[in-house]
Amino acid sequence: MPSRMKFAAAVMAGPNEALRVEQVPAPDLEPGAALLDVMYSEVCGTDVHIHHGRLAGVPYPIIPGHVSVGRIRELPAPIEDVNGHPFAVGDVVTFLDVHGTCNRCYECLVTKQTTRCAKRRVYGITYGAREGLLGGWAEALWMKPGVHMMRLPEGLDAETFIGGGCGLVTAVHAVERAGLRLGHSVAVLGAGPVGQSVIALAALGGANPVIAIGAPASRLAFARAMGATHVIDLDTPPEERAAVVHDLTGGRGADIVIEAAGAPEAVSQGLDLARDGGRMVVCGQYTDSGLTTIHPHAQLNRKHIEVHGCWGSDFSHLYRAVQIAARNAHRVPWREMIGATYSLDEANEALRAVEKREVTKAVIRPT
Amino acid sequence: MPSRMKFAAAVMAGPNEALRVEQVPAPDLEPGAALLDVMYSEVCGTDVHIHHGRLAGVPYPIIPGHVSVGRIRELPAPIEDVNGHPFAVGDVVTFLDVHGTCNRCYECLVTKQTTRCAKRRVYGITYGAREGLLGGWAEALWMKPGVHMMRLPEGLDAETFIGGGCGLVTAVHAVERAGLRLGHSVAVLGAGPVGQSVIALAALGGANPVIAIGAPASRLAFARAMGATHVIDLDTPPEERAAVVHDLTGGRGADIVIEAAGAPEAVSQGLDLARDGGRMVVCGQYTDSGLTTIHPHAQLNRKHIEVHGCWGSDFSHLYRAVQIAARNAHRVPWREMIGATYSLDEANEALRAVEKREVTKAVIRPT
Amino acid sequence: MPSRMKFAAAVMAGPNEALRVEQVPAPDLEPGAALLDVMYSEVCGTDVHIHHGRLAGVPYPIIPGHVSVGRIRELPAPIEDVNGHPFAVGDVVTFLDVHGTCNRCYECLVTKQTTRCAKRRVYGITYGAREGLLGGWAEALWMKPGVHMMRLPEGLDAETFIGGGCGLVTAVHAVERAGLRLGHSVAVLGAGPVGQSVIALAALGGANPVIAIGAPASRLAFARAMGATHVIDLDTPPEERAAVVHDLTGGRGADIVIEAAGAPEAVSQGLDLARDGGRMVVCGQYTDSGLTTIHPHAQLNRKHIEVHGCWGSDFSHLYRAVQIAARNAHRVPWREMIGATYSLDEANEALRAVEKREVTKAVIRPT
Amino acid sequence: MPSRMKFAAAVMAGPNEALRVEQVPAPDLEPGAALLDVMYSEVCGTDVHIHHGRLAGVPYPIIPGHVSVGRIRELPAPIEDVNGHPFAVGDVVTFLDVHGTCNRCYECLVTKQTTRCAKRRVYGITYGAREGLLGGWAEALWMKPGVHMMRLPEGLDAETFIGGGCGLVTAVHAVERAGLRLGHSVAVLGAGPVGQSVIALAALGGANPVIAIGAPASRLAFARAMGATHVIDLDTPPEERAAVVHDLTGGRGADIVIEAAGAPEAVSQGLDLARDGGRMVVCGQYTDSGLTTIHPHAQLNRKHIEVHGCWGSDFSHLYRAVQIAARNAHRVPWREMIGATYSLDEANEALRAVEKREVTKAVIRPT
Repeated sequence: MPSRMKFAAAVMAGPNEALRVEQVPAPDLEPGAALLDVMYSEVCGTDVHIHHGRLAGVPYPIIPGHVSVGRIRELPAPIEDVNGHPFAVGDVVTFLDVHGTCNRCYECLVTKQTTRCAKRRVYGITYGAREGLLGGWAEALWMKPGVHMMRLPEGLDAETFIGGGCGLVTAVHAVERAGLRLGHSVAVLGAGPVGQSVIALAALGGANPVIAIGAPASRLAFARAMGATHVIDLDTPPEERAAVVHDLTGGRGADIVIEAAGAPEAVSQGLDLARDGGRMVVCGQYTDSGLTTIHPHAQLNRKHIEVHGCWGSDFSHLYRAVQIAARNAHRVPWREMIGATYSLDEANEALRAVEKREVTKAVIRPT
Repeated sequence: MPSRMKFAAAVMAGPNEALRVEQVPAPDLEPGAALLDVMYSEVCGTDVHIHHGRLAGVPYPIIPGHVSVGRIRELPAPIEDVNGHPFAVGDVVTFLDVHGTCNRCYECLVTKQTTRCAKRRVYGITYGAREGLLGGWAEALWMKPGVHMMRLPEGLDAETFIGGGCGLVTAVHAVERAGLRLGHSVAVLGAGPVGQSVIALAALGGANPVIAIGAPASRLAFARAMGATHVIDLDTPPEERAAVVHDLTGGRGADIVIEAAGAPEAVSQGLDLARDGGRMVVCGQYTDSGLTTIHPHAQLNRKHIEVHGCWGSDFSHLYRAVQIAARNAHRVPWREMIGATYSLDEANEALRAVEKREVTKAVIRPT
Repeated sequence: MPSRMKFAAAVMAGPNEALRVEQVPAPDLEPGAALLDVMYSEVCGTDVHIHHGRLAGVPYPIIPGHVSVGRIRELPAPIEDVNGHPFAVGDVVTFLDVHGTCNRCYECLVTKQTTRCAKRRVYGITYGAREGLLGGWAEALWMKPGVHMMRLPEGLDAETFIGGGCGLVTAVHAVERAGLRLGHSVAVLGAGPVGQSVIALAALGGANPVIAIGAPASRLAFARAMGATHVIDLDTPPEERAAVVHDLTGGRGADIVIEAAGAPEAVSQGLDLARDGGRMVVCGQYTDSGLTTIHPHAQLNRKHIEVHGCWGSDFSHLYRAVQIAARNAHRVPWREMIGATYSLDEANEALRAVEKREVTKAVIRPT
Repeated sequence: MPSRMKFAAAVMAGPNEALRVEQVPAPDLEPGAALLDVMYSEVCGTDVHIHHGRLAGVPYPIIPGHVSVGRIRELPAPIEDVNGHPFAVGDVVTFLDVHGTCNRCYECLVTKQTTRCAKRRVYGITYGAREGLLGGWAEALWMKPGVHMMRLPEGLDAETFIGGGCGLVTAVHAVERAGLRLGHSVAVLGAGPVGQSVIALAALGGANPVIAIGAPASRLAFARAMGATHVIDLDTPPEERAAVVHDLTGGRGADIVIEAAGAPEAVSQGLDLARDGGRMVVCGQYTDSGLTTIHPHAQLNRKHIEVHGCWGSDFSHLYRAVQIAARNAHRVPWREMIGATYSLDEANEALRAVEKREVTKAVIRPT
């Protein structure tokens, strides 16, 4: 009875506790469900926040790991992908980490912003380890019925996709919300995984210049490889950074500014980088990092700017992320964003490396 | 030679100096120009700011008065309105106070936001008294060639239009920028002239509820007459105001929030009134009133909100303001917004009454 | 065992066959389902088309009746509305006639246009009578699990809502797609149920003029009661109608044109009513009525127009329709759109009356 | 007195008359004007239409040539470009062929679609030869005051820009109107100068696939060089073309369809290439080529499509065209679109070559 097997998983018992590898029983797979052999699961900045207890609503103990890639191991009943094609055992897939969007509430049906549905659960974040193999830092992942899986298409290897990972999906949403198009000038605050993918998408979409603002120098060098035409180090004082952006944009500021930095003051700094009537997207403030001060007269009203918050992602963003990555795997070094690969036993080191910014992206390879 | 005549004008010699009535010579009218007998000119909050020296770039001495209504007195050569109909001596007109938008610069031609054109001059604000009769607090107004005049159509008396005045035109722009439509819930911060007209436009556009937040009680009572379905006094602490707005909107917050208050903290408070994914327009921070603190995680990113700054107005807003006022003059008491009417000699009292908020709107009637 | 009861239903055995009242067994209600006592069900133009076999995919025999109002009779397990409030036996509700949108396909998840989901079923249209009480022309209606019900709020009686009915919901979608806002000029082709509600929504949203084009005179008179400021009879030749619309809009054509007429040539005629750069919505071509001829140079390219097809409705449109109807029941005579009320036995007469346009709207009252 | 000089110009006396080279006197340059030595002027499909008398309002005799590149020869008074930088004698510039947009009418100020301004004149089309050197097929071009000139920036040679020319500017507008963005699937009808530039812009903007539909084979080969991922020859019957487009887009049709073909039936064919809810832009019907038949039910209503007419271009499109061409001159072979270069004496041959489609693009080099 294969689904009675147990699989190793890295379990985070609570905030600031070291993760330990435990054996978690496989589920009885109901029709519509599947079991994946995990190939890769990402270590994301959010996991660091969760480890420090900075995210509300996490039901410790948990198996972390939201964006993941796996191979279908078991499939008790046929399931189709979004295009109506059946999945098969052996398929290499990713899936939307958000599950259980209710399709019945005001947010799902009236405002049509499923990322604000109160019923949604997130693999590796709001599912607990007692509920089963519902986080990616494990040998196997239980795809509950209704999870939106997607095959990696030809030309897209697992390493490239997981190299983009959560940041790529977030970046697709951010760039959509920015209304980015050919010829726009773009400034990106933050050179972490989200910022790097925003840079790549801006370049692929024909933006120019694409100005990356971040640190350290190694990340800025990588930003150039991703498509940044110019980079500005955080050693440069904020007013000087704004001056550089204005110089590069004919004295006006960027058409589009995308904040993917995380520090609250990046929001205020970003407003100074945008041109009058430009648009700024705030997608880096996923966790609560506190307050910032703005100047409504100069930064909002007189600037005639648009500021768009950007929360989470839905399946359309995952879908487009996979498509864009498949078509541009040869042009964009997402794969090289992976700074190090860790086993389940090394999950604590992985978290530490991300927290210390030793790597832009770490991944867990459980087997 | 009539254009050598002199006309009385209330002149503001400098910040905080009392206005004095002076005789200003009429211009030699070039073709394309016109001379108006001023019927009404508005006393707006901006005039108070100018009187305190809080607006940069004012070339004192000036004749204040930007939004005005007059009767054409002289017309040396034919001029047509926007619809190709010729103006005639005796026509009652208003005009866009912004003049000289260059139609040659990046803002005029590429971003198409003429309100950011650096060449634009504003009657009563950036034209000086030494340049002639270029402010409305005078017996006559010199319409330079290129000024965009508009006849008040049948059904729209001068008092109704000037009662709406600058605030109405700004409100048309704000409501356009808000994307307001039938069925939206709307919260309006500020019950001054801009806020009152936003309330009227929201009600005319089928919004419901329309929640006015302001003070004092008399202005809130007037807000109800303008179309507010609910009012909240500033005596209510901000968190409680937010609770009321959430109660009135099914627990979610308003679809649209329009800040027309002026105090910087109104921007932060407004963010708390909007629903997730809603839209906020900031149009009340016309002058620099300082900084405010926001919470990027909760107020922007997680809220998935859009914030739109809204600067100035162009002719389309004046045009639509006149049309809307003409069609709804019987339904909306713009005319009653005028709390008091002053002669040129009484200009100082007018400024004082507006500053002390004794009246929502004061107008100058020079003759 | 009440759910084993049988209920009378008007059954359409096939195209052009007279309907007969049959006894249809009630379902065993699974959790999430409900049974309604039908109060009213609409007789819509689509039912006439179905009766003539002009709609593909109808699984005769069927119980017609898509938009309906009923009272909850049985509720085996708690269900919540979109706002999280539980339904109760006795509640007066309507529901989205579209059911079973899959929430898994490309249209549901990527393009987010659930009205194009291939899995969707429609009460009274694509559910067959052999499947149970799944059409409104019956004493009882089986709300399958997942049907999106909505309580009629205080202030909205069943007659007013069903008077608006399917046409009101379609009109909400059309007006949304038109981007209609305060001050727009609007021309509406068609004075049937959809056209009448478009007129009402345009008027409530502050459009002016609102020009109704249709026939006969009685419907145009009703259009005035719904909010039309001007009406044009179909006796007027098309070029003359266009001339009238241009006269009423300063020689330019309407900002917004909404086709709700059904005849293919209305699409071409509508293009001539719109101003350069205006927007036209096509929502009247629900069934296949054939071809029409257009002039791409003059009607599309040089006119710089936008034409938006508008297919079906989703829950957001039903939700907003109910809200708008509740708030404006005193201002808009939706209730009076009902020209006649029929029993189940009289279903054939009802169809005939709608087909012959003897009534704008007919409803079935089964009990 | 240099401005009394005469310059050779190819003059079209009337429809179907052979062009003859005449000597046209140079203007007295008023301040704000300039005189260019023409380097290149385009021979565009519109010139062929004008030569056959198919465009209304052409004041024969004319000097054809609207989009042109020249070197400033005389500059009586300083003029600044859109960025405030002064022009100088010797600068290589292009200019918006549309001149005299009034900035005073409803279209200029209220709907803000200057391409519909009735006062606009067009160099080489609606200016007559008796008015002076106001067409590009001449040794010199009189830039009247108010003409919007733009320097070719570093990296953009005259040949590359004129290779794109009018078609590139139109394509910028079409792609803007299409809302094209990264990841869209695009089908382009027409492989002439507009279609080729649409293909290039779609590819630069990250669209994929980019499907070109046209003829002959040589143009389709060139389309691949411009960025098309797939091509379909017009030998393929229309239904088969649609089948290919559906195959290439997962069975759905293209997100974006751009008609740049000119034949009226291309509009109807294009509707069949778009996905449900997609967007089609019609920019190829610049001249009147007659009627076409559409199916409103299937092609508009049920398809839930958007169709956007796209008329002319304004300065923003020229500005962005120059910027995009400058940045991508190394990637896109606009320069190679020039099939042949003609002297003024050879203007008739140039027209004939374009009419017979012997070349995709012909240019006149007057000196």
